[in-house]
Amino acid sequence: MVDPFIVMDVMEAARQAEADGRHIIHMEVGQPGTAAPEGARRKLSEDMQSDAMGYTVALGIPELRARISKLYGEWYNVDLDPARVIVTPGSSGAFLLAFTALFNAGDKVAIGAPGYPSYRQILKALSLEPVDLQTSDANRLQPVPSDFAEMDVQGLMVASPANPTGTMLDKPAMSALIEACAAKGAAFISDEIYHGIEYEAKAVTALEITDECYVINSFSKYFSMTGWRVGWMVVPEDHVRMIERLAQNMFICAPHASQTVALAAMDCHEELQANMEVYKTNRNLMIEGLPKAGFTRFAPPDGAFYFYVDVRQFTNDSRAFAREILDEAGVAVTPGLDFDPVRGAGTLRFSYARSSADIAEGLERLKRFMAKRGFA
Amino acid sequence: MVDPFIVMDVMEAARQAEADGRHIIHMEVGQPGTAAPEGARRKLSEDMQSDAMGYTVALGIPELRARISKLYGEWYNVDLDPARVIVTPGSSGAFLLAFTALFNAGDKVAIGAPGYPSYRQILKALSLEPVDLQTSDANRLQPVPSDFAEMDVQGLMVASPANPTGTMLDKPAMSALIEACAAKGAAFISDEIYHGIEYEAKAVTALEITDECYVINSFSKYFSMTGWRVGWMVVPEDHVRMIERLAQNMFICAPHASQTVALAAMDCHEELQANMEVYKTNRNLMIEGLPKAGFTRFAPPDGAFYFYVDVRQFTNDSRAFAREILDEAGVAVTPGLDFDPVRGAGTLRFSYARSSADIAEGLERLKRFMAKRGFA
Repeated sequence: MVDPFIVMDVMEAARQAEADGRHIIHMEVGQPGTAAPEGARRKLSEDMQSDAMGYTVALGIPELRARISKLYGEWYNVDLDPARVIVTPGSSGAFLLAFTALFNAGDKVAIGAPGYPSYRQILKALSLEPVDLQTSDANRLQPVPSDFAEMDVQGLMVASPANPTGTMLDKPAMSALIEACAAKGAAFISDEIYHGIEYEAKAVTALEITDECYVINSFSKYFSMTGWRVGWMVVPEDHVRMIERLAQNMFICAPHASQTVALAAMDCHEELQANMEVYKTNRNLMIEGLPKAGFTRFAPPDGAFYFYVDVRQFTNDSRAFAREILDEAGVAVTPGLDFDPVRGAGTLRFSYARSSADIAEGLERLKRFMAKRGFA
Repeated sequence: MVDPFIVMDVMEAARQAEADGRHIIHMEVGQPGTAAPEGARRKLSEDMQSDAMGYTVALGIPELRARISKLYGEWYNVDLDPARVIVTPGSSGAFLLAFTALFNAGDKVAIGAPGYPSYRQILKALSLEPVDLQTSDANRLQPVPSDFAEMDVQGLMVASPANPTGTMLDKPAMSALIEACAAKGAAFISDEIYHGIEYEAKAVTALEITDECYVINSFSKYFSMTGWRVGWMVVPEDHVRMIERLAQNMFICAPHASQTVALAAMDCHEELQANMEVYKTNRNLMIEGLPKAGFTRFAPPDGAFYFYVDVRQFTNDSRAFAREILDEAGVAVTPGLDFDPVRGAGTLRFSYARSSADIAEGLERLKRFMAKRGFA
């Protein structure tokens, strides 16, 4: 029913190697190595003394919803009604709510391949049918209207910056997708979980283009709060009541403590910017170091913290290749098969979310491994 | 698609009344007024200093899974393999996992009426069909095999102690239900979220009877951790891998901080027992005070913290009656319609989860209100 989640097996293999006494560099993980901002954690420690931290209302703490709406002004100059902001148990909870609200059993939802593997699995778990769009290098592995114009689909889900590629949709590209969906009556869902982690240009939110969409975001990445499981979703005004009913029943609410941390984290600019400086440094290390290790077929990411590399000149089995890299080089990387069941046998994803020292060491190990193979 | 969740409207009306300056006694809420144990909150404040609190593995922190399995020895003398324990984002997350794992779109799942309203709504959201069993007073509003023996259902969900009635299934009663399910190849799911909050006898877990079942529990009630959104589920050994795949995709993990608090809470016996003493006091206040207010048609609960009262001699519209009680007496109570869409027009649920002073005051207000109506 549900396919394997290969990165989880890689993580387990890396954990096992560490339990056996080996030192592993983690370029497989999709999460920051940093904690939630210190100021935000301190706020929770204080609040826990006086507040019972019971259920919040289903749509989230009103102050947090208001603060999120303010972020849209700060980041995009978009004026957003806080009533349209739904606080969710991570973006995972937002996917469950969005798919449940928008689709009926048997509906088809288009997603780009490569893409975040859980889209496909959650859709299947909800008796919906994921339809992979085989994106092209020419379109920087993002979908374009012609990829699904002729298809019978009830929705399209995009991600910008994308996982695993880090590529972004600019405003014309996203507008074209939104128009194509509107033309065929398909719902448009924009996964914006990596917003805030951008390098050359600011990411575009779908809300700059239309109110008739679902936008999903999270405190996991830019705000460095993966384990807290809190995210948000923006929906059209006339969908709020339905989403509220679903959220009440499916989740009751997002974790109260996590909402407290999230609200405080949104004003911890200095720490968050310090994290961004590390990502920028690491991205530069990767741009320089990957080619030295023989990995030349990639585009530098616009956002997020991944490089998605074409390795077909070295292997046609990325899973076995990743295993060899782990066993011989002590570097955990993710085979592309999680993201693209068809073409992922020829790709690897390298994450640079950890410390710069780790990234430098990982690149050094990759270079030695590849040189020994005669690949670098 | 999803029915209203009336208690939420009651809570909103109570909040509005408080915003207008009125003092409201909360007998509508399904959660303790107490915080997570102090020792557990302190543990989190400490751990947050050194741990990034990233994603945990999908099945939960191994130490927590082990500690939960130990609880089954302590509470029921059941020897449980920790590998069968899945830590979930609240019992809500467990319901989503269980229903997704066990059923296919269109399957029918029997649930007792009255019962927890979200069962019905989550099933519908997952394209499954809830089938209400009209339980009888003779069976203390719990299902019995004859209620569904002739039905084409793929599963049965029971709760003991139940919400809203607080009645429990003893071992013969639960065994009979398990056998009836086995005979027709239906899955058996036991919601044990109120275990630990019992008054006369220890609640029976389905795991005392069979390993071929799903058991769902939570840290929300006995461990007083509603807003932390962490629970657990025990599944047959050969279901663990499938549940792990689903949990990885649907949730990634339960909140890390909440798992930390939960693990520490399990050894905070003194605080938890102090909470229990309050529930016992409150239950006695209710047994004495409800009849003085004219509410005589109820059975004292075996567990949980609710009285489910037949009010048909006063009204045939429990929703309007609850509204009058809120407006005139300043006491928020829940109409039975959430729990039983058919017969709930003649019932009210009174919660006694708050402080004893609140319960005493609430009963006094109810008495005055009912006396003015000529009902007491």
